[in-house]
Amino acid sequence: MMDSDRIYLIADMPGYAPQVGRLLSMMNYARHTTLEAVQHLNRQQLDYLLDARSNSIGALLLHFAAVEYAYQVSTFEDRGLNEEELAEWGTALDLGDAGRERINGHDLDYYLGKLEAVRNRTYDLFRSVDDRWLYEQEEFWYGKQANRYFMWFHVFEDEINHRGQIRLIRSRLPKE
Amino acid sequence: MMDSDRIYLIADMPGYAPQVGRLLSMMNYARHTTLEAVQHLNRQQLDYLLDARSNSIGALLLHFAAVEYAYQVSTFEDRGLNEEELAEWGTALDLGDAGRERINGHDLDYYLGKLEAVRNRTYDLFRSVDDRWLYEQEEFWYGKQANRYFMWFHVFEDEINHRGQIRLIRSRLPKE
Repeated sequence: MMDSDRIYLIADMPGYAPQVGRLLSMMNYARHTTLEAVQHLNRQQLDYLLDARSNSIGALLLHFAAVEYAYQVSTFEDRGLNEEELAEWGTALDLGDAGRERINGHDLDYYLGKLEAVRNRTYDLFRSVDDRWLYEQEEFWYGKQANRYFMWFHVFEDEINHRGQIRLIRSRLPKE
Repeated sequence: MMDSDRIYLIADMPGYAPQVGRLLSMMNYARHTTLEAVQHLNRQQLDYLLDARSNSIGALLLHFAAVEYAYQVSTFEDRGLNEEELAEWGTALDLGDAGRERINGHDLDYYLGKLEAVRNRTYDLFRSVDDRWLYEQEEFWYGKQANRYFMWFHVFEDEINHRGQIRLIRSRLPKE
């Protein structure tokens, strides 16, 4: 799905509706830069906290998977997370103290595996919809209308926002 | 141009080609969140440095205007910045030591004025192009092809990346 020769093209993607392909192009680029930003980090680096209120890079990676999963459920199934799903993803969604306590001790492969599994499900789900689906609206934040294109834009813009923080934290990791 | 009731819609925008409207929808949302992240900051807060290698929030704001100006020139005029333009924008483009030394002492209105002036020029420029223009490609990074849609996507994704850092810095400003 992620063709490295086409990583700088916002364009059609085989098997997807035109606008869906553009959206996935942007999601792919965002993920490409996330993966680059965390390359070769070890367990200690993934757990590192800049200060008492910082999120670890590992927790932010799991947050990306959690947000994407939550939007799969809300936009494709029109529901919130159930108890079982909240047990799996709730901490990574909320971050904060619980995130600092519970999300740690994992190698990079753990996080990459979660990201990949959720992303593969996104690829599958998007194959089933057309562009009209992206433009359907509902009430979203502050009583205003959002369309599904925006909701999925938000998924990758949240990732980019935290990738900026990951880069800042990475450049301040203690020297080995 | 920024209709607050339509801030969560990626959709057509009156006066622009369809894909251009979608791109501007995303640029508008990114800017909306940037403005929210810097609301009410005073001069000291805009100049605050998290540590010796940090960019100030003010410098990051000027960086957004500089990047956007540079892409106006590269994509609409197919050239790099000239000497005069580099004198105006070079420091904000590069940030780093020179940014820490030279970009400070301004109130929020100074930065907001720069952002608005450059954005208004973007709105004007985009009125002159059609969707085909967005899909024209040229060699870009690492010898790979990029289309203009990607180049402008990069303008707002760079803003979102640094907005994540602005939020991190803002939440760590010394208490008044």
